[in-house]
Amino acid sequence: MNGWVAVAGLGPGAEALVTPEVSATLAEATDVIGYIPYVARVAPRDGLTLHASDNRVELDRATQALQLAANGARVVVVSSGDPGVFAMASAVFEALEAKPSYQHVDIRVLPGITAMLAAAARAGAPLGHDFCAINLSDNLKPWALIERRLRLAAQADFAMAFYNPRSASRPEGFSRTLDILREECEASRLITFARAVSTPQERLDTVTLSEATPEMADMRTVVILGNSTTRRVGRHIYTPRHAE
Amino acid sequence: MNGWVAVAGLGPGAEALVTPEVSATLAEATDVIGYIPYVARVAPRDGLTLHASDNRVELDRATQALQLAANGARVVVVSSGDPGVFAMASAVFEALEAKPSYQHVDIRVLPGITAMLAAAARAGAPLGHDFCAINLSDNLKPWALIERRLRLAAQADFAMAFYNPRSASRPEGFSRTLDILREECEASRLITFARAVSTPQERLDTVTLSEATPEMADMRTVVILGNSTTRRVGRHIYTPRHAE
Repeated sequence: MNGWVAVAGLGPGAEALVTPEVSATLAEATDVIGYIPYVARVAPRDGLTLHASDNRVELDRATQALQLAANGARVVVVSSGDPGVFAMASAVFEALEAKPSYQHVDIRVLPGITAMLAAAARAGAPLGHDFCAINLSDNLKPWALIERRLRLAAQADFAMAFYNPRSASRPEGFSRTLDILREECEASRLITFARAVSTPQERLDTVTLSEATPEMADMRTVVILGNSTTRRVGRHIYTPRHAE
Repeated sequence: MNGWVAVAGLGPGAEALVTPEVSATLAEATDVIGYIPYVARVAPRDGLTLHASDNRVELDRATQALQLAANGARVVVVSSGDPGVFAMASAVFEALEAKPSYQHVDIRVLPGITAMLAAAARAGAPLGHDFCAINLSDNLKPWALIERRLRLAAQADFAMAFYNPRSASRPEGFSRTLDILREECEASRLITFARAVSTPQERLDTVTLSEATPEMADMRTVVILGNSTTRRVGRHIYTPRHAE
């Protein structure tokens, strides 16, 4: 019984963006664990048990994966996008650190197309120069740290990708983010709201920072703020490779 | 004659990390354009012309792609990794901006697995919290800007991924990068050197910042510096989701 855990990224939604590595690993699995909408993307078959759970139980889910693998199961923990970007990979290692008895379990991480790169591709190339990725959820860190990072990133003239910009439980956070960005950046800075990229619900809107409103983002949106040189060419948004 | 340009990411090297979208698009192409080692990854076939060119001619390559597509060709411009991250997508839009007569050409960008995410997956989850990506090549920007970004990113406590850390023509740049990071970060900070991930030449080494030397990086290496909480668990490196 050689169990293992693979923490796999399913990409942003379209089947054509799931890597062959992830598809082949899912075909070998005995168990799939993850948040309900991600597990729903895995086709049921004989010999495969689907364990779908609600949001905010990442550590329980990770511990269950280690436990099943320790007993010989071949477990795929599914994330959307890339599992290493604000997703399940860190939770699995946190669970491993908390339970040293599972240190012998074979754990692999299988990369996927993360939301910001799918969104950037659809918009053009807004992340074509130095950039940063910030999770705006303040479930896991204090708001003061988010604010500090936003200001320093703006001063560094990074393009920025924002994950989890807005949730029903804390609608004010993204409004404060926009206020800070308007203090640090020029009003004409381009900002792209990319919702559900590569799915039938896909929607992209690019506006200036002065035109942006909190309602433009929801939980399925990734937001990309350009740097000071980001511009439009035709229907595309891109950041030049050069900087002064 | 409906030509198009697709700017496609081939991922870090392994076939199993090429998305089905990219494979399907390559199957429809009449022309493939790119840097010699990337074009070499595309299988020759009847009806497909391979245009391989040397490094540092990105704009020529991009203009050629637009020109061929304007004449009805189905052109795939290939990058390794993701085309929107320090690769060909921005060059194609720069070429488009310079030649408004090509504004009618249909251009799509097809995302791929970028080097930092493939490397992070292999190491564990070092980019599991807020992070930034910096191109250390000073061909396209002044060194002073790189230095400023390194210091601000360290003050923001971002994990950092470095592309193009070291070339034969400017070996001193990465040495200066390490000096700056040692001024801004604690000596025990973890740094991972990931070379040629997913290829037979793959090699990963994680050391502390005090142990890091410039020779650990070459042109096929992506370097990942953890944030202040990045740690080891077993043989894995990860950054917790939480921060104070």
